[in-house]
Amino acid sequence: MTYASRAIDLNADLGEGFGHWRMGDDDAMLDIVTSANVACGFHAGDPDIMATTFAHAKEKGVAVGAHVAFPDLAGFGRRSLPMSAREIERAVAYQLGAAQALAALSGHRITHVKAHGALANIAERDADVANAIARAVRGVDASLALLAIALSEQTLAGARAGLRVVNEIFADRAYMDDGRLQPRSQEGAVIEDIEIASARVRNMLASGGLRTISGGLLPTQIDSVCVHGDSPLAVEMARSLRAALEGDGWKLRAFAGA
Amino acid sequence: MTYASRAIDLNADLGEGFGHWRMGDDDAMLDIVTSANVACGFHAGDPDIMATTFAHAKEKGVAVGAHVAFPDLAGFGRRSLPMSAREIERAVAYQLGAAQALAALSGHRITHVKAHGALANIAERDADVANAIARAVRGVDASLALLAIALSEQTLAGARAGLRVVNEIFADRAYMDDGRLQPRSQEGAVIEDIEIASARVRNMLASGGLRTISGGLLPTQIDSVCVHGDSPLAVEMARSLRAALEGDGWKLRAFAGA
Amino acid sequence: MTYASRAIDLNADLGEGFGHWRMGDDDAMLDIVTSANVACGFHAGDPDIMATTFAHAKEKGVAVGAHVAFPDLAGFGRRSLPMSAREIERAVAYQLGAAQALAALSGHRITHVKAHGALANIAERDADVANAIARAVRGVDASLALLAIALSEQTLAGARAGLRVVNEIFADRAYMDDGRLQPRSQEGAVIEDIEIASARVRNMLASGGLRTISGGLLPTQIDSVCVHGDSPLAVEMARSLRAALEGDGWKLRAFAGA
Amino acid sequence: MTYASRAIDLNADLGEGFGHWRMGDDDAMLDIVTSANVACGFHAGDPDIMATTFAHAKEKGVAVGAHVAFPDLAGFGRRSLPMSAREIERAVAYQLGAAQALAALSGHRITHVKAHGALANIAERDADVANAIARAVRGVDASLALLAIALSEQTLAGARAGLRVVNEIFADRAYMDDGRLQPRSQEGAVIEDIEIASARVRNMLASGGLRTISGGLLPTQIDSVCVHGDSPLAVEMARSLRAALEGDGWKLRAFAGA
Repeated sequence: MTYASRAIDLNADLGEGFGHWRMGDDDAMLDIVTSANVACGFHAGDPDIMATTFAHAKEKGVAVGAHVAFPDLAGFGRRSLPMSAREIERAVAYQLGAAQALAALSGHRITHVKAHGALANIAERDADVANAIARAVRGVDASLALLAIALSEQTLAGARAGLRVVNEIFADRAYMDDGRLQPRSQEGAVIEDIEIASARVRNMLASGGLRTISGGLLPTQIDSVCVHGDSPLAVEMARSLRAALEGDGWKLRAFAGA
Repeated sequence: MTYASRAIDLNADLGEGFGHWRMGDDDAMLDIVTSANVACGFHAGDPDIMATTFAHAKEKGVAVGAHVAFPDLAGFGRRSLPMSAREIERAVAYQLGAAQALAALSGHRITHVKAHGALANIAERDADVANAIARAVRGVDASLALLAIALSEQTLAGARAGLRVVNEIFADRAYMDDGRLQPRSQEGAVIEDIEIASARVRNMLASGGLRTISGGLLPTQIDSVCVHGDSPLAVEMARSLRAALEGDGWKLRAFAGA
Repeated sequence: MTYASRAIDLNADLGEGFGHWRMGDDDAMLDIVTSANVACGFHAGDPDIMATTFAHAKEKGVAVGAHVAFPDLAGFGRRSLPMSAREIERAVAYQLGAAQALAALSGHRITHVKAHGALANIAERDADVANAIARAVRGVDASLALLAIALSEQTLAGARAGLRVVNEIFADRAYMDDGRLQPRSQEGAVIEDIEIASARVRNMLASGGLRTISGGLLPTQIDSVCVHGDSPLAVEMARSLRAALEGDGWKLRAFAGA
Repeated sequence: MTYASRAIDLNADLGEGFGHWRMGDDDAMLDIVTSANVACGFHAGDPDIMATTFAHAKEKGVAVGAHVAFPDLAGFGRRSLPMSAREIERAVAYQLGAAQALAALSGHRITHVKAHGALANIAERDADVANAIARAVRGVDASLALLAIALSEQTLAGARAGLRVVNEIFADRAYMDDGRLQPRSQEGAVIEDIEIASARVRNMLASGGLRTISGGLLPTQIDSVCVHGDSPLAVEMARSLRAALEGDGWKLRAFAGA
């Protein structure tokens, strides 16, 4: 159950089109990452895109997870909807089940769950919502891993629910001194320089913790690095980071077998 | 695998509200039927209604199935959408998985799949669509039963896919001489008299086949009787039919254990 | 511009079905009220329901308004969505234009705008949102009346925008001492006794102000009384109230000609 | 009412994003075309995108029309939905009204209506649907122009309804000998060579009719040329065509003043 030392996972959000619209270069990203978080139709994605994404991930040996979100195509899941913990629990279960079925139809298998956008942001600090997500996962399939922001309420909620919790850090986001992600509205929150992002990730992996904006270190287990793929530059950053990690001797491998 | 003689299932479509809207008297029907076909969010239903319906069905010992449909809330799934067999297969899998997950969350378990509305009408006569539905069910969970209109293409498609096929007749619909349902647009297609509907069902069960509008008999296995619950009269018909069947010595029992 | 003395308007929310779902007894209500607030497809309603409702209102001489809401069919417009004032302004304009076009197609004409559900609740106390709604109305058609909760921010926003503001009171809701509606979550917030509701409305009309839960009077112009029609009891209350007002010598008449 | 000789309109479909998704390079196209057909939220577009597109079009002096479609975000309006003529009439009116309102809010004004995708394809040959669209336009605002495929049923329907009909040809589509567009499924239906497309348009404008795949000429009034903008190549074709037409002495000008 433990994750091999000197092995690390790279994850990205994929399948975020809808109908005729597309977002990001999924094909390029599937050659780089080891785990894909696949949209489940609530913030993006539809049955066809989901099935196709699962099939391509299977071909390329990439592990897949259900990327669960608020039901909000118009807001891409980035708006916090006024839903109760009970409603969130059920919405998460719905999406997870749909993803499991389409993965099965495509010959693949869901091995993790990750919250998207506003749902992830709330679950980072709201124990009720984090618990609702964890209950949904346990109720549907307790063998699934919960991919959580390191040092967030989700890590506790997952553990309390008896789930395997996998901690992720972000390649291109700054951490505040309490370990939370700096809000995107603040200057410096998003790191756009490929070299800096790469150096930062390597430092956190080598140090075993989050490096905050003041230079402090918050020790934590790190199982996965989240990269973006919604622009040519983002794909380049992901590719460059993977090469750098391999150069450091890290073995790139899904935390869950693909 | 065989269904006990002198036992019959009564099924109805439930959970067909959406958000604040409701349709039919689900509570009354759950006291009458032995199997419930639960809307999966495409023609009706949402995660909360689904979870609540599964929980109530569990309490009352009613078996549950995924009532899969075209993605068409505006048309209640009664319009034929121009979707390919591949798209239908994926849409069915999506709904089925979502239903399985919410049933699990509610302590229940999906044991059958039934097509709704326009999707059922097409699958009655179009082998490609019938096969698509069967492939979706097999791909997601081959142990599920396929609840099909007796003498329809779905019965063949289910059998070819290795699924358990369960045949249903309709309490309140007339059959043409080829065994197909008389279109609702024709006079006499819908039977509104409770006594006549009841006598007709009892005759078909006793005779072991479909009784057509000309009086002919088309022999076929009958495993379930579909009743409606979307009006006070419909609930009364269902209740009356159940009493009549019990009077005839039929044991009312879900074809799949609840 | 002034509204005739001893004349009062009765308004209700109509056309709140969607697709095959229905809510309330619109036909009964159109025989009672003088103004109808018609859902515009965002919280309820669709082009067919809208066109039909406008046509029936025209036949019965009932004035019609656009009942604008958050885009939230799943929540019936009762959830506060995280939208900016700019987004609200545009969403209101969209709905208003759609309603104007369908009213025109049905031979009727929109003469007022009213905010629904969560949007109305926010606009009662948030000047930014109230101004956004008023800007949308003025931008689309400055001759329209704004039907606003008496003593709310909407009355100021409408006036600042140069719109005709029409003040409504509620037949079945209690007012707090500051003139705001008592939240539904509190005991006594909703008045279910027909006699009490009727007496209360007659008192407020006679006194020329809001009667609060402590018995105080907050003087304000009253142009319309809002009644509900989503249950048989609600229809009965509306009918009874109309009779009582007519008995008092009030002439029931739309604030805008129908 | 007649359109000046030696003047021609270039039109393109814009505002076809939804929420966070985008399609095509609207900014580039607004520098090239003289009329923009703006999506109304049914196949693409939302209140924000619509308002922004209208504002940008106003700034650049581009006339705007309502690009009306089947309600089908998932299919981008390219699927034929089973709707009655009555339902289509109402859906078109709804979209047109919404577009008028948002154009007004942005300081612009809708001056034409054009059917999109599957709705346009059906209206090309189905008189009932073409009449339904024309009735909707007349019912909402009889002063609007109907932008129709040349030699289609829409031209007759618009004329019968007393609307100004504006005929368009396609820069990149082949015409069959009966004047209909060659289906996209057939080889040669779409012209991808910029030089060929440009020469073809110039020939048709000079000849005053449709040039068919056999080389025949079907004389018809031509008021506008439709160009696409959903790929870098498409933008380049549009720009190149405009330059060629200007070189031929055509004055590029909206058929309706912007």
